[in-house]
Formats: sequence, C-alpha cells, structure tokens
Amino acid sequence: MSYQRDNIAKMAGYVPGEQLDYADVIKLNTNENPYPPSPAVNAALQAIDTDALRRYPSPMAQTFREAAARYHNIAIENIIPTNGGDELLRLVLTTFVEAGEVVAVTQPSYSLYPVLVDIQASRLHEIPLQDNWDMPVDFIAQLNASSAKLCILVNPHAPTGGLLATDTLKAIADNFSGLLLVDEAYVDFVEPTAAYDAVPLAISHGNIMLLRTLSKGYSLAGLRFGYGIGAAELVAPMLYKTRDSYNTDFIAQKLATAAIESVDYARGTWQQVRQDRHRLAGELTELGFDVCPSQSNFLLCRVPAVTEAKVLYEALRERKILVRYFDQHRLRDKLRITVGSNAENKALLSRLRQLL
Amino acid sequence: MSYQRDNIAKMAGYVPGEQLDYADVIKLNTNENPYPPSPAVNAALQAIDTDALRRYPSPMAQTFREAAARYHNIAIENIIPTNGGDELLRLVLTTFVEAGEVVAVTQPSYSLYPVLVDIQASRLHEIPLQDNWDMPVDFIAQLNASSAKLCILVNPHAPTGGLLATDTLKAIADNFSGLLLVDEAYVDFVEPTAAYDAVPLAISHGNIMLLRTLSKGYSLAGLRFGYGIGAAELVAPMLYKTRDSYNTDFIAQKLATAAIESVDYARGTWQQVRQDRHRLAGELTELGFDVCPSQSNFLLCRVPAVTEAKVLYEALRERKILVRYFDQHRLRDKLRITVGSNAENKALLSRLRQLL
Repeated sequence: MSYQRDNIAKMAGYVPGEQLDYADVIKLNTNENPYPPSPAVNAALQAIDTDALRRYPSPMAQTFREAAARYHNIAIENIIPTNGGDELLRLVLTTFVEAGEVVAVTQPSYSLYPVLVDIQASRLHEIPLQDNWDMPVDFIAQLNASSAKLCILVNPHAPTGGLLATDTLKAIADNFSGLLLVDEAYVDFVEPTAAYDAVPLAISHGNIMLLRTLSKGYSLAGLRFGYGIGAAELVAPMLYKTRDSYNTDFIAQKLATAAIESVDYARGTWQQVRQDRHRLAGELTELGFDVCPSQSNFLLCRVPAVTEAKVLYEALRERKILVRYFDQHRLRDKLRITVGSNAENKALLSRLRQLL
Repeated sequence: MSYQRDNIAKMAGYVPGEQLDYADVIKLNTNENPYPPSPAVNAALQAIDTDALRRYPSPMAQTFREAAARYHNIAIENIIPTNGGDELLRLVLTTFVEAGEVVAVTQPSYSLYPVLVDIQASRLHEIPLQDNWDMPVDFIAQLNASSAKLCILVNPHAPTGGLLATDTLKAIADNFSGLLLVDEAYVDFVEPTAAYDAVPLAISHGNIMLLRTLSKGYSLAGLRFGYGIGAAELVAPMLYKTRDSYNTDFIAQKLATAAIESVDYARGTWQQVRQDRHRLAGELTELGFDVCPSQSNFLLCRVPAVTEAKVLYEALRERKILVRYFDQHRLRDKLRITVGSNAENKALLSRLRQLL
C-alpha cells in the first residue's frame, strides 16, 4: 500500500538539469555563472572554525539579513533568508495558498512552479504569452478571471529572457487581489540602462514578494542561498511560522554575507556576462538561429530550419556540450543556451558550425 | 489584509532555544555536543575549492548517501539526505498527511511536532505518558482509536531521555495502520549495552521511517544535515517529489560525508558524554534533584523542593549558565540540562550548590 497523499501520488517530481561530473564537459544547460565566486567568499571560507559547527546557527541568519538590508537600503524586517530560492517559492505556497486555490503562471515559465502547485494540492492556471513572448494585453483581466490567490512571474523571464518593466509589475499588483511573487533569479544580468529595480515597489506594496538568489549572480549555486524581499507583514509569517527553524547553515550564512558585501566583484561578472551575451547572440544569429532578446544569462534560440532542436541538443551532448532542450509546447524547436565563459562560447559556436 | 492561510494565521511558530553569542556563556540548553567535530570534517573544509560553488550541488547528495548506506549496511534507496532533521519531519508531513488527518504524539514530546501539524492543517492527538514517563500500557489501542495517519515518537525520548526498545517499536508498527516516524536525534548517546538498533526494523517494515541527524552525535548542529532511513517506497516520494530540488549544499555534503566516514571519532565523544551523563546525574541527585534515567545527552530533573524550576533557571541565566525550562504541563517543576564538557558540568554544579 502507498501512504502518499493523493496529490503526491498523482504528481511527477521536478527534474533538474543534468549535472555531469566530467571535467571536460562544457555546461551551458543550468544557467550557472561561468566565473568563480568573489575572493571574499574564499576568505570567509578560510576563516571558518569548524569548532563553531557544533552550535546551532543563527536561526534567521541575522548577519546576512543585516548585510542584505544595507545592500538594498531596506529594513531587515523586509528580508527572509532561505535555503536557495527554491525554499522561498515553497514557503510562499505553504504560507499563503490553500489546497484547491489557484496559482497563475505564464506559459511557458519555470517548470518547477507546477510541481510546487501539485505538492500544495492547489490548482495551476497557465496564461499563454503571445507569439513574440510578450504578455497578453489582457493579462490582468485573465489573472482576475482565474480567481488566483497567487501569481508567479519570473522576471527576467525564463526561458525567454524577456524583462517586464517595474511599471508593468506595479499595474499587475495594483489591480490584483492576490499575491504577486516575482522570481528575480536572473535580475543581476539585466542591463543597468533598463533601470529595473522592483525593490521599492515590493516594500511599498503589501502584495508583492521578490525572490533573490545568490546561485547565479554571485556564482554560488552550490551554496543554496536565496532570500525574499517584501513588506514586513508578508515576510513575518514565513520567517516566524512556516520556515524550518534553522533553514540556513552557519557556513552558508558566512559565505553569503561575504558575497553580498563584496558585490562589486559580482558586478564585474554581470558586466562580463552581458558583453558575452551580446556577442554570442550576434554569432548565433549569423549561424541562422532566431535568438530572443535576453536580459538574463541565457539565450532562447529557435534552431535553423536545416535541423531540429532535439537532434542538435543530442549531437552537442555527444560532443560533451550540454545545452537545455525542453520537450514542451512551443519550445520543441528551440534550445536554451547559458552564456558561458568566452572559451566555452567559442567552443559551442565552433561545434555548431561543424554540425549545421 | 492578511494573505495567510487560516491555519497559518491562527498558529504560533516554534521558538528555538536561546543562542546567546557571548563566549563566556555556558550553554546547556539546546543539547549540542560539547566536543568539536571530527578532524576529518576540518580536513574536508580545508579541501573545499570555492570555485566549485558556482555549480549546483548533487541534487540528492549522492556521495553522502553512499557513505551512510555503507555505515548502516543498507541500500542508498533507503536513505534521504535532508537539510537538518527538521526537513525530514516536514517532508513526512507534506508527503503523507492530508489536511484534517490526525498526527499522534506522546505528551510530553518535542515541541516542534505540534507546529508542523499546524502548518499542514492536520490534527494533533496527544497520548499522555505515565507519571514515570513510561508509555501507557494501552498505547497501541489509543493510537488506533485516534485514527492517526502518522505517529511521531522521539527515541530516546525528549525531554525525558527514556528509551523504547526495538521490540516495542516493532509491536507498534505491526499493529498500526498508519506511518510510524521515529525521531532518533539522540540515538548516538544510547548505551551500547542497550543493543538498540531500529535500522533493520525500518528496512523490513513498510511503515517505519527513522530520523537521523548529524547535529548532536557528530557535533554539526551548525551544518544542518540529517537523513531519513526507511523502506524505498517510503523514501522515494520524498526524494523525487516533495523535497526541494537541491535541498543540501555542496559544502554540507562534503563535511557530512567526512563526519560519517570518520564515525570512530564521533564514537569517542558519545562515550565521553555517556560517562559524564552518569557522573552529572549522580551529582545532581546528591544535590536533591530527581533525575530521569537518560539514554540521551541531556537530563530531565525535578528541582529540589526548596526552590522552583523557573526561579532556578532564571538565577542560572543571570550567572550566564543556560539550561532549558519548559512552561508546559508536567514540566514546570523540572529543568532539562544538556550534558556539557567536564568543565561546564562542574561550573553548573558549583553554581547550583551556591544557589540551593
């Protein structure tokens, strides 16, 4: 017999991107930063005294909260540190969405969201993006018609890389009776000229929660550290009730604090990724790919008509270059390619020239 | 307006034991191991290359699973690594207990369980222990009468330190139609002469899940690393569906693996704690405390009639010695005292002699 709840028994789990362990694999499939973390992170690691590990860590990662509050110029009450951005996503569902309530997302979007909706036994409502991946002009009307309790938007969008302006987010939040969760996993790679900053919006609104992660922008996917930003009354129930009592560990707290306090180093990697994104997009276009304009560290590209996305994905994989292929509606003719280091991007382009 | 679910709005969160950050505080309140982690943990920390942190960790902590499987002589399919034992507790609720279903615990027990029951909107059923803290003789009948889907027992018991034999656990599991979760957070401190080992029972039964943690036995509370042991069909839905995709981080995986692979070091600390527990219990008894027999790394003691537990707790706290006082039914005349280092125990006894 199975003891699982019905919704768990029926659901399928999330399948993470491949993590092949071979040193000679070029990994452009899970949007990791191609550059190492800040030297300050390494210094913080060297300074760890393992004897300190016998004690419980700060339950709320207080030192990190203080550093993040300074960085964003907000109060610590507006910040909840989490075990990766994943935990924040889960906590928002656990805390605010009843079984049977509707969670609205765009189609396409990050494939983890439907899994979390299944776990909470809530209902998924998908609102299709337009053919050019813009939001439908009646998005707010569709959202309200769905009676959603929660709307999750990833901004910049995954897997397309498109960016919604803060004005658009404000209009959605102002005209929506539910909660708006904006997953800003890739926000650090947005062009500064876009002048995108949703933090003041989240602080002033009682129904906007932002997700930040150190995985991409700070080259710390291995550390599992993220945080949420929102009004204190949204943060509090997750911080004091639904979060695991000690959700982030002592070492991760120290390294995450060092990373955010040395943000100038990370900024340098963001600028490099933006430059390489621009160059890679141009070269892929020359090869016949149709590349979505991206404000993220990846490019969604329709493959040239002479081949098929799945065939190309597999041919690259055989040659130890991993990119992401989604066997999903509207994505089967495309590949999502992480912007890698200069050498990785060159190797990819060279292989593509051979294969096409 | 509040966006919280009704059950979340109504509930109170868990309050962890105090973590005062002063070097001169004697902390005997949260059952931490008084000895540092294994030198192998330190070596593993020194060997970490921060460049590796830019990549996602092994989603299922595969190397740790293999090490834990070897240690317990079971298959990796029987093991789920978690972000502290807390995560396993939560996952069991999320995966197996519907809203409205009953979770049975003993009274008293670990105060986190009712919080997790509230989060899941399930119902708590408390079965009182006898006056001598033994299980009631009709425990199984009471359990079945409650229609519980899940029964959580902490063994050795917290906060009393008493141990149920594996035969008792087997009888419960054999005669219970729900799941039995045995929280073995303190199992490493059980006297070897008790010949307690519930692992074979968990593997052979389809309705027993064991919780293990590295927090106490391996002096790694700061690391947040635990694991569950059970039949593969119980482990699988938590591993592949309800767990956060990357629930444990790269560094924690490395250090936890080093800890369990150097278990002989940890065994030395367990033996030391057992010796000190015996000595401390004797000396507290001489001072007039009524000390529960304990197989754990703490002692639940009724304070001498000349004082009150809360008064004594506060007097110790003023003198920078922290012990645990529970403002709960049946516990208001008692203190829970962690077995500390020899020097810490001596300092406690010296203070107590002055205060009484």
